[in-house]
Amino acid sequence: MDEFAAIARHFARLGEARPDVRVGVGDDAAVLAPPADTELLLTTDTLVADRHFPETGFPPDALGHRALAVNLSDIAAMGGEPAWALLALVLPEADDEWLAAFAAGFGRLAARADVALAGGNLASGPLSVTVTAAGFVPAGQALLRRGAHAGDVLFVTGALGGGAAGLRAIRAGAPADAPEAVAFSRPEPRLHAGRALAHYARAAIDVSDGLVGDLAKLLEASGGLGADLEAAAVPRAAGATLAEALGPSDDYELLLSIPAAAAEAVSALSAGTLGCAVHRIGRVVETPGIRVDGHPADAAAAGYRHFR
Amino acid sequence: MDEFAAIARHFARLGEARPDVRVGVGDDAAVLAPPADTELLLTTDTLVADRHFPETGFPPDALGHRALAVNLSDIAAMGGEPAWALLALVLPEADDEWLAAFAAGFGRLAARADVALAGGNLASGPLSVTVTAAGFVPAGQALLRRGAHAGDVLFVTGALGGGAAGLRAIRAGAPADAPEAVAFSRPEPRLHAGRALAHYARAAIDVSDGLVGDLAKLLEASGGLGADLEAAAVPRAAGATLAEALGPSDDYELLLSIPAAAAEAVSALSAGTLGCAVHRIGRVVETPGIRVDGHPADAAAAGYRHFR
Repeated sequence: MDEFAAIARHFARLGEARPDVRVGVGDDAAVLAPPADTELLLTTDTLVADRHFPETGFPPDALGHRALAVNLSDIAAMGGEPAWALLALVLPEADDEWLAAFAAGFGRLAARADVALAGGNLASGPLSVTVTAAGFVPAGQALLRRGAHAGDVLFVTGALGGGAAGLRAIRAGAPADAPEAVAFSRPEPRLHAGRALAHYARAAIDVSDGLVGDLAKLLEASGGLGADLEAAAVPRAAGATLAEALGPSDDYELLLSIPAAAAEAVSALSAGTLGCAVHRIGRVVETPGIRVDGHPADAAAAGYRHFR
Repeated sequence: MDEFAAIARHFARLGEARPDVRVGVGDDAAVLAPPADTELLLTTDTLVADRHFPETGFPPDALGHRALAVNLSDIAAMGGEPAWALLALVLPEADDEWLAAFAAGFGRLAARADVALAGGNLASGPLSVTVTAAGFVPAGQALLRRGAHAGDVLFVTGALGGGAAGLRAIRAGAPADAPEAVAFSRPEPRLHAGRALAHYARAAIDVSDGLVGDLAKLLEASGGLGADLEAAAVPRAAGATLAEALGPSDDYELLLSIPAAAAEAVSALSAGTLGCAVHRIGRVVETPGIRVDGHPADAAAAGYRHFR
């Protein structure tokens, strides 16, 4: 972590943002104090240049935001509260201006989410960013992928397809901060929604590989159930096609399976409580497979991307 | 973590190795149960092909071992007990044979250290391996870099310079498992020594950037003290020069600052208790700077490698 300490001044405000960071950046490991009666959530995700983001035309502050956001989305999908992050950066060269911008993007989201950067690593090589995020849930209350029942109502947060539409816009030359691009460049982890909906939901997943693909994983984890979706009910981001809303889109919304008896209560939750809208999009059924308006979901839309 | 789940079968035995893994690979995040009255240790390190290991001539099982070992060494240097690891792999292609060998090397060390692989990520790109290791220490008892006092006796575990000598042998064509190469290809994290010596030590660091360089960090963290070392007392690995033993060598031994009153007791600890030898190599003094046999330590030997 020593080379990382040399760049950590860019993140300096972050390291001391939480009293439960006993020792942060600058020792052999971070020393952290988890609260009593909680379980720890840990997740890690890597963004590789030209695989997960365009190496040119994608500014470092957006990359800093996105690298943290995709990990916080995993904490949100467990109904958890994020606390700490570690950052492993591989960079072709240590450029101060680049690092300052990256740290600014990372830092603004970290501050909003009350996440402290507790450690990291800096190495020289082809550009990639690996973040590890840690958070908590009350013991025994993590929201898993398994647990959906036939008869449950399916809900999704926010709107879908914006990530794909945003990447399309960036590739066509739009700035990363243009309104049509921000769903890709600055996805918002649904932390408030995840914690609020954990009280109602039986199962959840974050829609990082596309609605149909991630729904398939939730149904499989729940014992091979099926689902019926209504195309008109799927909330579509501005500029997104239906295929983009159903397929792989890098959206980082939450998909939740809610007992029918709680569906009205969930529909009544305000965007103020959740931090975003929540939409009822279909039902869990016994019959395996996923149907959209009665037709089997397009295999292409399922978009399970192997080894990306 | 979904693509990772597809390769996690290679690591299958590992994920279920600990009862405190409530949910491992295959959900949005791992759910883990830290023991009461402990603090959590978190550390992350990346190995980049051709920066930290030769891309050719370095077998995947050695890479799997090494990627975990360098992180467990950080846990050892805090006096901690490791528990869980996350693995973020970036690979040019997902090759089953490569993955099986990598998992075998990672897994053997994980099993010996009682570490469960709790999650990970797989992405396509230029070869690099980022491991995050998590462990515990009793609350308030983490062994930090700061805390050395003038008059303390400096001890080091194992022998130094073996990493550099081993890499030299591999570059000259030796197999990674040849006796002269294993100190580089399979460094042994000093977990038993770290925990046993935490009862005596005031400060510690793992010697990953070289004895003189890491000693300088420990002295700086302890308020700008100095040290006098005896060259003849520095334990040298077979085939290693004095410069390799003092300079950057990728050795992953522990350097500890022990109160003089405890030095005899530490010297009397058996290799059976510690898992390795421990050698007294010098003293902490008020006079800043590091001297070897009275001569200022060579700046080249200090070998603080920026941005590697």
